[in-house]
Amino acid sequence: MSDMSVVINARMVAFVIHALAVVVSVMVFVWSISYRGGFAWESKNKTLIFNLHPVLTLIGLVFLGGEAIISYKSLPFEKRVKKSIHLVLHAIAIILGIIGIYAAFKHHNEKHIPNLYTIHSWIGIGIIVLYALQWMYSIIVFLFPRVSSTLRSNSLPWHVFLGVFVYVLAVGNSVLGFLEKLTFLEKSGLDKFGSEAFLVNYMAIFTVLFGTLVLLIVFSKSPPTADEDNFSYSAI
Amino acid sequence: MSDMSVVINARMVAFVIHALAVVVSVMVFVWSISYRGGFAWESKNKTLIFNLHPVLTLIGLVFLGGEAIISYKSLPFEKRVKKSIHLVLHAIAIILGIIGIYAAFKHHNEKHIPNLYTIHSWIGIGIIVLYALQWMYSIIVFLFPRVSSTLRSNSLPWHVFLGVFVYVLAVGNSVLGFLEKLTFLEKSGLDKFGSEAFLVNYMAIFTVLFGTLVLLIVFSKSPPTADEDNFSYSAI
Ligand code: HEM
Ligand code: HEM
Repeated sequence: MSDMSVVINARMVAFVIHALAVVVSVMVFVWSISYRGGFAWESKNKTLIFNLHPVLTLIGLVFLGGEAIISYKSLPFEKRVKKSIHLVLHAIAIILGIIGIYAAFKHHNEKHIPNLYTIHSWIGIGIIVLYALQWMYSIIVFLFPRVSSTLRSNSLPWHVFLGVFVYVLAVGNSVLGFLEKLTFLEKSGLDKFGSEAFLVNYMAIFTVLFGTLVLLIVFSKSPPTADEDNFSYSAI
Repeated sequence: MSDMSVVINARMVAFVIHALAVVVSVMVFVWSISYRGGFAWESKNKTLIFNLHPVLTLIGLVFLGGEAIISYKSLPFEKRVKKSIHLVLHAIAIILGIIGIYAAFKHHNEKHIPNLYTIHSWIGIGIIVLYALQWMYSIIVFLFPRVSSTLRSNSLPWHVFLGVFVYVLAVGNSVLGFLEKLTFLEKSGLDKFGSEAFLVNYMAIFTVLFGTLVLLIVFSKSPPTADEDNFSYSAI
């Protein structure tokens, strides 16, 4: 697909992206605290341990991960600085993701529910493993000064493809998680058309919208008038 | 993202794609018939009506839709022929999708379950509406001889972006459907680690794999030695 880029103003779209990240983060806190009782690392109420899971995975893997992906096009700094921001944001995303997944396992273990029986959990493990491997490989290839520029430019399209792949899985897996949690709650009597059901479903929709705008930026080029260097998407 | 294409042999990957489509289609028939009792359009056993839903949406929107997307790169015909195949396959996909969705509504109505209360169903409606609109717009822009070539080439990146977007939603929504159905069955006592649970989860994994390979072809270019014209991805 050579040069199938859509032409957009990346910084305008990035503004909407930041706003959506804030809105959905607030929604997931409101959900966890007002509807689901808040957070705890140690508690007799095991739900409070679970509640850390959506907050950390969403804010980490989806929102910070998304901001990391668009950083080359959304930020007004020189490339070297944006490169550091890109890799640091991804590192934070991975760490929050790992703690969030750990919370889900802790909740299951302390409640004696089996682990890893859903497609959500299998894809979740796939995501965090691929994310971490991609991060380590990329640190070596795109950061070490000794690496040949041929290897770098050959790796870049695969870096983008794998990055987009893992990112789409993260967005999709969050929607799977929301659906699963809401299905459990509805089977235990929650109103299918009540305010909590709408809150959760709208979080899912907004998460998909957020991910879509991130990918719109990935597959875009800037209008011809814009400063070419600042907008270029390249890790090299 | 100008020229971030990965270099692959599209016809080799297409071969794996066709094979996966056959394998998962067989799996979904085995599941519906051997585990879930088969199909019916009119029956006292409403499950038999529902069973049409995954079979038709998967084979239509995901497998035929995916084959339509890769047809420019997977088939050895001249561009005019591939263009017809592309739009006819998408039309069949949409028709099967509509009948499949109709079956889900019919099942709900005859069982007096409310409609459209899940994120799966909301995204499902979004998919079929966008898919049909995209098809109609594209017929006008890329088929009518009077349309200016500027409009065509400006529309093409958006055609690809929207097409990929709807396609990712279709793959993701199928996984949501599998998860939802399996969660219902497990809440009614199905063994979380039994053979049916594994069958359904593997269908979901293979569906994601299928979709990923389709996108790999979309974001690829052929090796430099290959016949440029046959492999080019362009609806113009
Ligand atoms: C990309 C983000 C996410 C990843 C990588 C992820 C990963 C995981 C993993 C690995 C498990 C298995 C834990 C175990 O088996 O003990 C799990 C469980 C769970 N997650 Fe997530 N998760 C994500 C987002 C979410 C979100 C946003 C929700 C929304 C509420 C959610 C809801 C659940 C639920 C209900 C479970 C328990 C049932 C199950 O095992 O599937 N997840 N998650
Ligand atoms: C892209 C493909 C798909 C689309 C567009 C789609 C669309 C829809 C729609 C619109 C409904 C709502 C019907 C109503 O409210 O009366 C629905 C229901 C349902 N679908 Fe799908 N579906 C797809 C694939 C699947 C697959 C592969 C499964 C796997 C079993 C599945 C399982 C279900 C279930 C269990 C329901 C009933 C619960 C609910 O309303 O969410 N779907 N689907």
